[in-house]
This record gives sequence, structure tokens and C-alpha cells, in this order.
Amino acid sequence: MGSLAGTTETQSAPAGMVLPYPYLLFLGDADPSFAKTAYGLRDWAKDKCVGEYRLPGGHATTGLTQMTPVEAQKAGARSMVVGIANPGGIIPEEWTAALAEALEAGLDLISGMHSRLSDLGNLGEVARRTGRRLIDVRIPPAGLPVGTGRPRSGKRLLTVGTDCALGKKYTALAITEAFQARGVDCDFRATGQTGIMIAGGGIPMDSVISDFLAGAAETLSPDADPDHWDIVEGQGSLFHPSYAGVSLGLLHGSQPDVLVLCHEAQRTRVIRYPDFALPSLQEAMDLNLTLARRTNPAVRMGGISVNTADMSPDAAEQWMADTAARLAMPVADPVRGGPRFQALVDNCLSG
Amino acid sequence: MGSLAGTTETQSAPAGMVLPYPYLLFLGDADPSFAKTAYGLRDWAKDKCVGEYRLPGGHATTGLTQMTPVEAQKAGARSMVVGIANPGGIIPEEWTAALAEALEAGLDLISGMHSRLSDLGNLGEVARRTGRRLIDVRIPPAGLPVGTGRPRSGKRLLTVGTDCALGKKYTALAITEAFQARGVDCDFRATGQTGIMIAGGGIPMDSVISDFLAGAAETLSPDADPDHWDIVEGQGSLFHPSYAGVSLGLLHGSQPDVLVLCHEAQRTRVIRYPDFALPSLQEAMDLNLTLARRTNPAVRMGGISVNTADMSPDAAEQWMADTAARLAMPVADPVRGGPRFQALVDNCLSG
Repeated sequence: MGSLAGTTETQSAPAGMVLPYPYLLFLGDADPSFAKTAYGLRDWAKDKCVGEYRLPGGHATTGLTQMTPVEAQKAGARSMVVGIANPGGIIPEEWTAALAEALEAGLDLISGMHSRLSDLGNLGEVARRTGRRLIDVRIPPAGLPVGTGRPRSGKRLLTVGTDCALGKKYTALAITEAFQARGVDCDFRATGQTGIMIAGGGIPMDSVISDFLAGAAETLSPDADPDHWDIVEGQGSLFHPSYAGVSLGLLHGSQPDVLVLCHEAQRTRVIRYPDFALPSLQEAMDLNLTLARRTNPAVRMGGISVNTADMSPDAAEQWMADTAARLAMPVADPVRGGPRFQALVDNCLSG
Repeated sequence: MGSLAGTTETQSAPAGMVLPYPYLLFLGDADPSFAKTAYGLRDWAKDKCVGEYRLPGGHATTGLTQMTPVEAQKAGARSMVVGIANPGGIIPEEWTAALAEALEAGLDLISGMHSRLSDLGNLGEVARRTGRRLIDVRIPPAGLPVGTGRPRSGKRLLTVGTDCALGKKYTALAITEAFQARGVDCDFRATGQTGIMIAGGGIPMDSVISDFLAGAAETLSPDADPDHWDIVEGQGSLFHPSYAGVSLGLLHGSQPDVLVLCHEAQRTRVIRYPDFALPSLQEAMDLNLTLARRTNPAVRMGGISVNTADMSPDAAEQWMADTAARLAMPVADPVRGGPRFQALVDNCLSG
């Protein structure tokens, strides 16, 4: 996995959030299992990262150079990112001194945790004194407009899902990388906190006031050159009993030309909602296309991205071959890659 | 039109908004054409209103008794409602003294305007000193949960639409009144500012953070007696390029047993979005039912409520007769009422 810095200079429209990178990745003294945000940044945005900062007692590492905030600032860093996503999203009080140290060194602070940075110890006061910013990625930018439904120039791909938490972000990142490898002018457009840090900008769709959902999605992928692609990170699922509204606002506002449906091969029930069966792949494709046509009548399916992490290579290959034959669609696991994934990418670009 | 006080003591669940009524209706010095909120309260919640308060130069009147805030408080009023909805939703500075007078008289203030009451002159200070509340109905209650999808006891009817601004609130109020006239235990559940004032409580769905849309709708119509009906005011339309996400969250969270589709007979394009054709009535029924089945597989259509305000009585009757025959559905204009509307109500209750 490589750089997803994108090919346009500014990653989002005026109302969008733009983050100050390069980053220093803060790992605190956390356990490796909680360092997903830092690992995601290393894997997908290495060129936005200058190093990592670990506290005594911590065992997580990204393998990037260890440095203090002062050293990072000298190496070009503009901010320090809280690279931890622990259960509850609470930033421990014991990290306050290290976070303040970054502000004193001239770095802004970026967090995707539920705790607001300004509510932590004296960070608000230190930020004011040093003139640095405290950026909570879960807070959407101010001034988002109501959607207009106006068609925009350029092309768009949106990842949609049969459920939450099965690979919509990963798929969008992998497709962005594959498009870039083919010389296609494109940007990854992030809609969730980790994606926003990777992209260096974006809009946290699930935190937007509902009246502005479609408008936020329109803002996220503005007019572009006719050959430019925005690869938009999907959220939730039209079939999710809690989050379908977010998915529909994102679908309408993104006006995608191409959809890629994401699924986990062995999942049959909505995660954490065992009373709800997942839709069939055909049903999920049909409903997404039906609703997407409202703002882009030319929308089509690019393929199915399947998470086969829990399957043997043979079983995964069999599942993908059967499903591709049954639905007459490219089916691929972007983590496994290979010819199946290249065929999916071909199909996305073939419109 | 009569009282919609509802038959349960508390109009909403713990997280919902409950307004302090009876109201004194404040008309300022506004023109009658801007007094829609006051007229709506007089028409649908007369038993929640003790009188009106008009400033010199004003020509709007609800026909209710003129009184000062002091007189209203003695007559039992607990709050004064800004009964005006002017373009832009701005409360004029010149009204500040009259609003402060209400606080001094021991009344809370309620507004559905865009301007926040606490941003107006010295109202915040006066409210603190007098211990009165400034209630902006556009601000949703704190602590709304994420949706669960759990089926709830009791029955629910939701009004849905082919578009915005064509009678979803009016239809829900008229059905509530018709149910109550038949002795059916029911509550009107409000989802927009005027509806919330009429009901004395509710949740402004379009102002809810999108992650909590379905959860807000679940909160709005909690578990109830098996024979109790909640009549939920719809918002937006699944076909609206800006607001469909709100409509879907409300649809999923309401878990309606019965849908009533609202339409304006002669409208063919989305209001203020002339590039978007309205769906056919069949298409609108089909999509709403398909999506509603996700959280209530037993959902069914109760009928079509049509706004025929711009048609002659003969033309309206012809349109309704033709449409009812074509779609095999009760079709009625609740403003015209009559046997058609009673047939629609019958069908809603016949499940």
C-alpha cells in the first residue's frame, strides 16, 4: 500500500475539513491492539507521517522512526495525531502532558476519539497560549449547505455495503491505489474519522446534522475535471436499522457513477443486531441502484468487494468464483488482490 | 378541528422534548401572512392556548382573547410562544422588550425561529435572573440514542410524501382527530417545529445528528398499550435529493404498521428543485413499503392523502375517484373530509 495523497492540491471544498500534515503518530502507552488508527495511517498514508512518539511502557509500534515532538517539528511535522482508538474513545488523563508537549513544540493536535481535546486537562489553555489548533475529527465543518441535486462534473465511485464494518473504507482505499497505479487522476474522499486522517481531509458523515447530509456529500466531492474520479468512502448500509439514513444521504449527495458493493462472505446477520438478516447481494445491488438513480440516472455496479479474511484461500476462491458466475459481476477481495481485483477495477473504469 | 392533547399523560419518552403549556400566542407587530404558527396552534391545539398578545401596529389575530403576559400568567399560561414564521426565521430586535416582559411575568419562552432566543438582546440574562426557560424548538433534546431496531408494542401510522410541503403534518393531525373521534387511544407525534408546538412535545428530526436519526424516531414513539396508536408526522420524501436521509431514518425508526402517502394533486416536480420529477404514486408506495419492511415486515398502505387546494370541487372529486379506482386505494383530501376521508380512516384502522 502506498500514498493516497491524491492528485489535486486541495482535498476538499471550502466547507470541508483539511488537516495539517505531515503527522507525528502518538501511540501513548497503549497496547498494540488499540493502535489501529496509527497502523492505518502507516499503511495508507506513509508519506503523510514523519515518525511515531511512544510513551514509556507502551508496546505498540508502527515501525516508523521514534521521535519527540520537537524532533518531529524539525523534521517537518505540522501536527501530532492520537493514533489510538480504545473502547469508549476516551483519551487517558496521563497523556495530557505529552499532548501539551506537542503543542509547545509547535504542532497542532488531531484526534478522532470521543473525548474532545479541549476538555482534556489544560490543553485548551496551552493551545490558546501557543496559537496551536485542537482538531477533533468527529466534529463536522461549519456552514455545510443543504443539498441541491445539481449534477457535478467529473466521475465518482462510492463503496456501499450489506452492513457496517466489513471493508467499505479499505475497498475505497484499495481502488484509489489501483486507479492511481493506472495513471487515473483520482482522490480518496473520506467520510469517517480514520479515513479523514488518511486522506488529510473529509467530512464525518455520521456527525452531520441530518438536514445537511446530502449537502455534505455534495461538498465532499465537488466539480472536477471530466476525467477525474472521486472514490468516496461509504458509511453504514441502506439495510441497517440504525444508520440507513446516513447511507441514503451519502448515496444521493455523492451522485455516484459507479457503486461497489462490499460484503463479508460469511456474515449472515447485521453485526450487533442479530435479529436482522443481511440482504442478499442481488437485493443490496438492486436497492442501492434504485435509490442512486434519483440523483444519477446513469449509475451502474462496478462489482462486489468481499472480505474473506476468515476463509482459507481455496474456500475464498470458490466463493468468489461461484458468486461472480451467479451474479455476472466481478467479485474480488482487495486484501487478496490478484486478477480478480484487477478485473473489478477494469469494470469500474469501463463505463 | 379540536384538541390533540393526546390520551397519554406524557407526550414523549425521557429523551424527548416536552413543552410547558398552556401558551400565550405572541404575534408581535407582524403581518397576518406570517402568523401561520399561531393559526396552526389555534386550529389544532386551542385547548393549549389561553390567548394572544399583539403589539401596537400589528394586524394579525387568531381571534383568541387579547391579554398581556401578566394577565396570561394569571389565566394559567406557562409559556409565551413566538407565533410568527417570517422569511429567514429572524426574530426582530424590537420584540425583545415584549419577550422579556413575558419572562418577568413568569412565563417561559418558546420559539421555532432560526434565531436563538438566547442570542437576542438581554433575554439570556433576564431568563437567568427570573429562572425562566428559553426553549428553541429547532434544537433536539440531548442524549438521543442510536437506533436498536427492537420492535415496540402499540401501533404506529406514519405519513410519508412524494415531496416536502404538501400536507404530511396536516394529514397526521386530521387522522389523529378522526381516530380520537372514534374513541381510539392515540397520540400525534410531532417531528417538526410547528407540529411540536401543537403536540406540546416531539423531536425536530431534521436537526438531529444523522447517527441518531432512527434512534430519535424510536424515542418519539415508545412502547405503548397494544391498542394505542401513535400518528407520526412525516418529514421530507425518500425521493427528495436533499432530505431523503431524514425520511429514511424516520421510516426505519418509526416502525410504522400503516403508511399514508401524501401528495399534491397537480404537483409534478419537486418543489424548488424543478430538475426533479415527482415519482408516480405507485412508485412512492412501493419504495416506502419496501424500505419500511426492514423494521416492520407487516407494514401496509392505509391510503393516499391528497392536497387538492388548487382544484374545483368537481375536478378534485374526479381526480380522487380516478386515482382510487386505478390504484385500488382509498384516496381523500383531509381538508375536504367527507366519506372519502372516513373510508381512508377505516382502512388505516382495519389491519
